[in-house]
Amino acid sequence: MSFPCLEKLEQRTKNLEENLENGPEPAYSKITRENVEIYKSNEPLFLDYGGYLPQYEVAYETWGTLNSDKSNAILLHTGLSASSHAHSTEKNPKKGWWEGFIGPGKYLDTDKYFIVCTNVLGGCFGSTGPQSIDPMLGEPYATRFPILSVNDMVRAQHELIINQFGIRKLHASMGSSMGGMQCLAYAHEFTDEVNKIISISGCARSHPYSIAMRHCQRQVLMTDPNWNKGHYYGQLPPHTGMKLAREIATITYRSGPEWEQRFGVERADPSQKPALCPDFLIETYLDHAGEKWCLEFDPNSFLYISKGMDLFDLGERNRTKASKSRYQSENIYFGEVVSETDLEYKSSTSCSFVEPIKTKRSRRFTAEEAEEDLLKGLSKFAHKDVLVIGVESDILFPAWQQREIASMLSKGSKLKGGDGSNIKHVELSETDSFYGHDTFLLAMDHIGKPVSEFLSVD
Amino acid sequence: MSFPCLEKLEQRTKNLEENLENGPEPAYSKITRENVEIYKSNEPLFLDYGGYLPQYEVAYETWGTLNSDKSNAILLHTGLSASSHAHSTEKNPKKGWWEGFIGPGKYLDTDKYFIVCTNVLGGCFGSTGPQSIDPMLGEPYATRFPILSVNDMVRAQHELIINQFGIRKLHASMGSSMGGMQCLAYAHEFTDEVNKIISISGCARSHPYSIAMRHCQRQVLMTDPNWNKGHYYGQLPPHTGMKLAREIATITYRSGPEWEQRFGVERADPSQKPALCPDFLIETYLDHAGEKWCLEFDPNSFLYISKGMDLFDLGERNRTKASKSRYQSENIYFGEVVSETDLEYKSSTSCSFVEPIKTKRSRRFTAEEAEEDLLKGLSKFAHKDVLVIGVESDILFPAWQQREIASMLSKGSKLKGGDGSNIKHVELSETDSFYGHDTFLLAMDHIGKPVSEFLSVD
Repeated sequence: MSFPCLEKLEQRTKNLEENLENGPEPAYSKITRENVEIYKSNEPLFLDYGGYLPQYEVAYETWGTLNSDKSNAILLHTGLSASSHAHSTEKNPKKGWWEGFIGPGKYLDTDKYFIVCTNVLGGCFGSTGPQSIDPMLGEPYATRFPILSVNDMVRAQHELIINQFGIRKLHASMGSSMGGMQCLAYAHEFTDEVNKIISISGCARSHPYSIAMRHCQRQVLMTDPNWNKGHYYGQLPPHTGMKLAREIATITYRSGPEWEQRFGVERADPSQKPALCPDFLIETYLDHAGEKWCLEFDPNSFLYISKGMDLFDLGERNRTKASKSRYQSENIYFGEVVSETDLEYKSSTSCSFVEPIKTKRSRRFTAEEAEEDLLKGLSKFAHKDVLVIGVESDILFPAWQQREIASMLSKGSKLKGGDGSNIKHVELSETDSFYGHDTFLLAMDHIGKPVSEFLSVD
Repeated sequence: MSFPCLEKLEQRTKNLEENLENGPEPAYSKITRENVEIYKSNEPLFLDYGGYLPQYEVAYETWGTLNSDKSNAILLHTGLSASSHAHSTEKNPKKGWWEGFIGPGKYLDTDKYFIVCTNVLGGCFGSTGPQSIDPMLGEPYATRFPILSVNDMVRAQHELIINQFGIRKLHASMGSSMGGMQCLAYAHEFTDEVNKIISISGCARSHPYSIAMRHCQRQVLMTDPNWNKGHYYGQLPPHTGMKLAREIATITYRSGPEWEQRFGVERADPSQKPALCPDFLIETYLDHAGEKWCLEFDPNSFLYISKGMDLFDLGERNRTKASKSRYQSENIYFGEVVSETDLEYKSSTSCSFVEPIKTKRSRRFTAEEAEEDLLKGLSKFAHKDVLVIGVESDILFPAWQQREIASMLSKGSKLKGGDGSNIKHVELSETDSFYGHDTFLLAMDHIGKPVSEFLSVD
C-alpha cells in the first residue's frame, strides 16, 4: 500500500526546512500589521485567570464613518480563526470574510454605521499574542504567554473603543461563533456601554462536547514533535499537527445534512483500490481544509484561543472568581497588598506572571445549580435589547445553546421587571440552512435580514 | 506553563524502549490465542476489494450447547474494538463485554441458545490480521495486508459456522455497532442460512460524518512517526497516535446529554491555573480513555477495521462491484482466465495480492439514486425477520440510520409481497438512554427486553 498523504507531509517538512535556512519564514509568521490599524496600550491588562500583560496592542479595521455624537458604532467580534478583515479596505483590497454582509446598503450598512472589527488578543494577525515579543525577555512569549479568557479579549477591545475612538456607548456589539461569545461577554463587562447585542451561533457557556472536540485538536497539535512545547518560532512549525487539528475542527464547522448531499459515500476515484490515505470525497475535503490552513495560523495562537473558548462561562461563579483574581493581581501589581503571601506571589512572578490564587476546590454544581448560576450571570444585562440567532444543523454550538441564552435572558428580563420582549430569538431550521456552524458565512440572507431589522429598530 | 501530559507520553516511550530491549513485548502484541478456539482454513478467502488471503484463522468463543438439529445457534458479531470475549468462559474466567447479557435465563439465554462470538478478521485477538505472518514472506503482513470489507469478515465467519459446526441455518445473526453492520451483511450474503437478524446501533451504509470521524482517527495514528507506515512490529509502537485516535473515537461513543450531567463544565481542579494539558473533567475522561487503550489494540488492526467500516455499503452498486471483483480474483487464482490482461494481474501479484479491477469512474449518485440503490441491496433479505434497534442519543450511528434500515426493509418486504410486519423497529429515546452509541453496553435492559422477545417468537 502506498501513502501519498504521508509523503506530502514529508515533502512539506523538507520545503520548510530549506526555506528556514534561506528565508522567507513560513506563511503564518507574516503578520499583516501593515494592512491594519494598531492601538497600543502601555497600561497593563489584568487577566481573568491570573497574571497580566504589561502592555499590548490591538490590531483593527473599520468601515463607514463615526458620526458626530459617536452613536453609530458597531463592534464586530470574530470567530477563532478569522482576522479583522471582515471586508476589503483601502489598505487591503482583498475580499473579507463577510464581504457580502458589510457595505453601503448591505445588512451592516456602512452608510449608517461605523463598524470596527478587531483581531483578538492572543491571535496572530497583529494583536498581541504568543508570537509577540515578551518585553521582559526580548523574545516571543510562546507558551509563557498567559491563559486568556474571552472576557479578557473584550476588555482589550473596550480600551480601543474608549481610548482610540472615545465611544462611550456602542450602538451594537455583535458576532458569530466565538464572536457570539464575545458580544455577550462585552455586554456582561460593559453593560451600560452598549445598546444592542447580537449573538449568532454562540453560547453563554461552553459545553462538554465542544470542549472535547477542541481538546482533541489541541492534543494532536501539541503531540507534533515540532510543536516543541510551543517554542518553534524560527524553527520548523508543527504543520502536521495544525493540519490534523484543522481537519477535526472542520468536522464541527459543517454538518451531516450538507455532507450527505455534497459527498454522500462517494469515493474520490472508485477505479482505485481503497486506501488508508484520503479516499472518500469527504476525506479529500477534510484533507484539503487541513492543507489550506496548516501554515496560515500561528499554532500557539490557535491553542490559546481554543482554550479561551473552553473556559468561556458567563455564570456568576466563574465571573466572580475571575473578578477576584484580577483584583488581586492588580493589588499585587500596584503594591497595595503587603501580606507575606502576597509578597510570595510577587517575588515568584518571572516576566509578566502572577501565580493563580489557590482556592479551596469548589464543590461540583448540580444541573439545577449550574442553570441557576448561568441565569444569575446573564441577568446582569437581561434588560438590554438582545438578538440571539441559532442554527438547527449546528453541531458545535447547537441550537439548544442559543435557546438557553434567549430563555435565560428572557427570564432575567422579567426578574428585572421587564416583559422579556427585549430578547429576540431566531432559529434557522435545517431547510433554512443545512450548513451547520458555518451558516453565518454561507447563508447570509437568513442571518442578515433579522440582523439589519434588529439594528434599525429603536 | 508545564506539560505533564507530554511528559507522560515521553515516559511511556522510554519505558517501552527499555522493554523492547529486555522483553516483554508491548501489551497489544500478546495475542490471546490460548484463551480462544481457533478455526483454521487453508482455502483462500477472496476479498471484496481485490486480492485474497491464501489461508486464515478465525478465533472464537462459545456459550451454551448446540442442540441435536443444530437449530439454536446465534452468531454474535462484535464492534470495532471488542474481542470474542463477550462472556467469561472456562478457559478465560475474565468477565466479558456482555457478561450481564449472556447466561442461563439472561437475555441471550444459554439454556436455550448456542452462542458463537468471533474475533473479526483483520483484528488482533487471534484471527488473521495485519500482525499475522504472511506465509509468502515469513514476516507480519503489516500494511501489505489487503483491505477488508465487513462482508469479507462475515464470509470468514460463515466458513467457521459451516465447517466447524455444520450449522446450515443460524437461529439468529446479531450484533451492535460494527456488529450491527455484520449481521446485516451476513443476511445479505447468506440469506437462506439465517432465521432472524438483530441489528443494534448499526447501519446499512456508512455516512460522511462517521467516515470523517474515523478518517481523523486514522490520520492522527498514521502521522505518529512510530507508526512507520505500518512496519512497527518488534519496534516502538505508535502509542501516542493510538491514544489520540481513541480520544477522538470516545467522543463519538458517548453523547452530549450524558456528559452534560456527568462532567458539565467542571474543571478537574479549579484551584489550579487553567492548562493546555487536560484540565476540564471531560478532558481527563478522554485522556484516560486514550491511556487505557493505547497499547491494548494493534494499531494496524485498528486502521483496517476502521476502514472496513467506512466502506460498508449494502447498496446494490457496491455489492455488485464487490462480487465481480471477487469473481475475477477467483478466476485468476484458479487459472481459469488466460487473457493477457488477466495474466498481467497474475504476474503482478506479489504475496497475496491481486491488483484491483480498474473500472470506469462511476457517475456520482443523486440522493434519490443512492436511496434506490440501498433499497435494492436491502431487498435481498427484506422477507426475513429483522429487529432494528436505534438510540436517539447516538451521534455515530444516529437513530435516522436505524429508521432508514427499518423503513427500507419494510418497503422491500412489501415489494416482495409481504406486509412489512416482519420488520420490527425499536428506538430508545433520550429518556431511555442518554449514553449514545455505547447504550448497548450500558442500558442493557432497554436492549435486552426487545431482543429476547424477538428471539423467542416463532
